[in-house]
Amino acid sequence: MDQELVDFFLKQIPFNLHLGMTVDELEPGRCVLRIPFRPEFIGDPVRPALHGGVVSALADAAGGLAVLSTFDGPETGVSTVDLRVDYLRPGKLEDLICEAKVLRVGNRVAATTMVLHHGSLEYVAAEGRGVYNLFRFAE
Amino acid sequence: MDQELVDFFLKQIPFNLHLGMTVDELEPGRCVLRIPFRPEFIGDPVRPALHGGVVSALADAAGGLAVLSTFDGPETGVSTVDLRVDYLRPGKLEDLICEAKVLRVGNRVAATTMVLHHGSLEYVAAEGRGVYNLFRFAE
Amino acid sequence: MDQELVDFFLKQIPFNLHLGMTVDELEPGRCVLRIPFRPEFIGDPVRPALHGGVVSALADAAGGLAVLSTFDGPETGVSTVDLRVDYLRPGKLEDLICEAKVLRVGNRVAATTMVLHHGSLEYVAAEGRGVYNLFRFAE
Amino acid sequence: MDQELVDFFLKQIPFNLHLGMTVDELEPGRCVLRIPFRPEFIGDPVRPALHGGVVSALADAAGGLAVLSTFDGPETGVSTVDLRVDYLRPGKLEDLICEAKVLRVGNRVAATTMVLHHGSLEYVAAEGRGVYNLFRFAE
Repeated sequence: MDQELVDFFLKQIPFNLHLGMTVDELEPGRCVLRIPFRPEFIGDPVRPALHGGVVSALADAAGGLAVLSTFDGPETGVSTVDLRVDYLRPGKLEDLICEAKVLRVGNRVAATTMVLHHGSLEYVAAEGRGVYNLFRFAE
Repeated sequence: MDQELVDFFLKQIPFNLHLGMTVDELEPGRCVLRIPFRPEFIGDPVRPALHGGVVSALADAAGGLAVLSTFDGPETGVSTVDLRVDYLRPGKLEDLICEAKVLRVGNRVAATTMVLHHGSLEYVAAEGRGVYNLFRFAE
Repeated sequence: MDQELVDFFLKQIPFNLHLGMTVDELEPGRCVLRIPFRPEFIGDPVRPALHGGVVSALADAAGGLAVLSTFDGPETGVSTVDLRVDYLRPGKLEDLICEAKVLRVGNRVAATTMVLHHGSLEYVAAEGRGVYNLFRFAE
Repeated sequence: MDQELVDFFLKQIPFNLHLGMTVDELEPGRCVLRIPFRPEFIGDPVRPALHGGVVSALADAAGGLAVLSTFDGPETGVSTVDLRVDYLRPGKLEDLICEAKVLRVGNRVAATTMVLHHGSLEYVAAEGRGVYNLFRFAE
């Protein structure tokens, strides 16, 4: 894993830190992120189920990290152009895990796909798609 | 405002409470929600800008509340089927406000549109679309 | 109306010509397109209703033309990055009209919103969102 | 293959017939559709490339057929709630093929994923997501 990128991603991005994200896997064009469960992440106390906003926040972050991982140095940044999340099953009151893969990266725009589950692909809570803008800090 | 619904939404949904959401306006088919700024909501420390996950969480919650507001009693629930967020401009380090409107509500599915800004429609940070499933607790 | 752009759009893009599109209005950042009804556009013979593919094709084309209209000369092209269509009501067996507006245009990416109806906003058949890549032919 | 369903889909839905669709594969929850190339499907005469509307129309149709294939009899219908298409690479001037799979089917709503290519997954032109409403004709 590119430890410098992991450190930036987890420690320098306050909301990632706030949600308690961890990076389980990271390779060029793919990553696996995790948010350990906390009771304040509940969105539906009746079923009960995770809040969709925890799911979408993790999906957004994972897609962005997957795109960043395709670049060598720290001079490239990403910003989300759009995000779509399909909620397939209620998120469990357990760790939420997101695998993100880059579908296509161009000079200026990258597309990613995300799968969100609880440790097994037999229970996929959600799937996501993201489009990201690439920019060079030196520009 | 339907105070019973507001209380449920803000106090019984842990992640809404955790993000500090408030309900500024609520009428059948439309609501305005707010997340007061906190430093831990930052997603890009360089620009700086709000985290996309704060934006998507607020969009999801506001669409859901707008749908709930079209029903009279507490026996109807909603769950998000899918959510799309278009990030148009970097979210400012200020209160984030989301106006949600129901586009169409059927027997089983409702569609909503959301606009996210910082107090003025001259700077729209993002727009969202949501589709929600309706269910009756009595079923 | 920029007649040169209209001519290019209607006559040089075969599928637009094939569907019989017309340009009702065109100004920088906004356009109104129409597809006159033909029986082969039916998608659901039971209700009956227009095919979703006619709706999505018009939405895609209208968003692209709205983006193109923000540029002066012929040296800029657009390609669709992603398109979302929310189908709100069955499309009628009548002319389908799409109003597209640019939400945000940057150096490299533009976002648009589209409303599809049958001559009155009281019956909105669908709404769309598109993201488009901008490129310069001279590059 | 369920030949009755195939016949309905290709012959009773005018726009599918108009685009020349064929069903290459069909099993419960999954199908592969094809649109043989015709010059009128071109959307960008400069590159050249297929029109995004041909891509979205095929994606929509394939997702709908995949959902229909999960039901036994003719009493169930589907209508598209929303469709998203990510355009990853320019569509070639060749047959366009779409594989659609059902991600999740409930009592009232189903979600699908689609991959659009030209005969090989090494060149994926687009990916799609659809949400469909289920209804019973007898209701």
